[in-house]
Amino acid sequence: MNKRKLESNRPQILITNDDGIYAPGIYFLWKALKDHADITVVAPAGEQSAKALSITLSQPLHIRKVSWEGNTENLWSVTGTPADCVKLALREILNKTPDLIVSGINRGSNLGRNVLYSGTVGAAIEGSFQDIPSIAFSCQDFFEPDYETASRYIPHIIEYILNHPLPEGTLLNVNFPEKKLGKFKGFKMTSQGNNQWIENPDKRTHPAEGHHYYWLGCQLKRKASNDVWIEQGYITAVPVHIGDLTDWSHLKDKKEHFEKFFPEE
Amino acid sequence: MNKRKLESNRPQILITNDDGIYAPGIYFLWKALKDHADITVVAPAGEQSAKALSITLSQPLHIRKVSWEGNTENLWSVTGTPADCVKLALREILNKTPDLIVSGINRGSNLGRNVLYSGTVGAAIEGSFQDIPSIAFSCQDFFEPDYETASRYIPHIIEYILNHPLPEGTLLNVNFPEKKLGKFKGFKMTSQGNNQWIENPDKRTHPAEGHHYYWLGCQLKRKASNDVWIEQGYITAVPVHIGDLTDWSHLKDKKEHFEKFFPEE
Repeated sequence: MNKRKLESNRPQILITNDDGIYAPGIYFLWKALKDHADITVVAPAGEQSAKALSITLSQPLHIRKVSWEGNTENLWSVTGTPADCVKLALREILNKTPDLIVSGINRGSNLGRNVLYSGTVGAAIEGSFQDIPSIAFSCQDFFEPDYETASRYIPHIIEYILNHPLPEGTLLNVNFPEKKLGKFKGFKMTSQGNNQWIENPDKRTHPAEGHHYYWLGCQLKRKASNDVWIEQGYITAVPVHIGDLTDWSHLKDKKEHFEKFFPEE
Repeated sequence: MNKRKLESNRPQILITNDDGIYAPGIYFLWKALKDHADITVVAPAGEQSAKALSITLSQPLHIRKVSWEGNTENLWSVTGTPADCVKLALREILNKTPDLIVSGINRGSNLGRNVLYSGTVGAAIEGSFQDIPSIAFSCQDFFEPDYETASRYIPHIIEYILNHPLPEGTLLNVNFPEKKLGKFKGFKMTSQGNNQWIENPDKRTHPAEGHHYYWLGCQLKRKASNDVWIEQGYITAVPVHIGDLTDWSHLKDKKEHFEKFFPEE
């Protein structure tokens, strides 16, 4: 990151995640950015993986100060989801709209359709819905991800996005490839892959009561992936835009037929 | 609903919701359909409003039998989210893929961008992701919704969809207008509106500890709505398709520039 350049305008960055405030990924993100920007961290008090864009309506939300390396300034946990964190940060914690929202670094990839299940990307979607440039960062490794190496590249990506803004309502979904592929080969901006999981719930028996219970998150199979770049060792960046979700083709085909089927009363 | 027609093929329908198995909306849905189709109900044990497409990874899921009017056959609660319910129903509870997944009847509308926050629509998105025709039903009234009247129209909509299938991956998002508008004026198939909420968290003080806490779900304002049909008293049906979310325009514009900014190593 061009330190002088960033310091001259000192961007305001909101950091969040879905693995929770005490997950190592968010700590590395904060460490990578704290000298270059005015950072506020507002992250879930507990793990919120796969919480998508969910928000908390039936429980009140508590905001608590956090301490990292003796720092307590602008570090907060919220007893809710990533989207809750973004909403409370914007309306209750920050004095002004941040220049950027950064979510992660997530433990495990967020590719293909998983952007809609992920809380990490959910926070970035919430940011993009509020017209704030947002980036989600994820490491493909679930076991022992190398956040330190990933976080060395993050200031450069952020510098790029601050200088070359995303279109309104578009977020950037960045994934770092597996460690076993060796040194990162470079960066690719690419389209959303077809990556998706098919659940194979793991059925177990309760030790005392004898009934069955189930664990989700047990992958049966992944659709043959077309995420070729990340599998070849490139850091991938997908611009994601969630706009109008209408199936216009079906609407045009069936509108008249549907409405005639149900005459006005 | 054309009873004979439906009975001759006896469709298999999975019912779920996000207000929870004991919410009145799902009970009216079940009552409206149970004589016309083979119904299995798999719904959240507790309220799961605004849970979006979230799934439960850090807790095990329990499935329990439910009794309605002395019936216990094919009625189940799951200690998770609407999407969890669909996943467990498809992989653990049902013997065959259902012809249709029906979610609701939700307390409160699910219009515009709220389709991505709603657990009701989340269940239908999960169904559409699994290539099963799915319909979400919601009543615009949050206080004292008239589920009974709404549920009289639902068999007709279901009959239509069974006979005029949705495209693969497309769900139908149906909303019933407010009671105060009087008798339903008819049906409109329409596009997704621009309805969105802006949060205004309600800040309160804990009675014993003195710290602040916050309630979300307190609407500051709604963007001027273009959902004209529902506001005029029509039942609206929006075909929703969540496919590739890539911002292709930005990708085409910036791919080369982005990749040149980060030379290969």
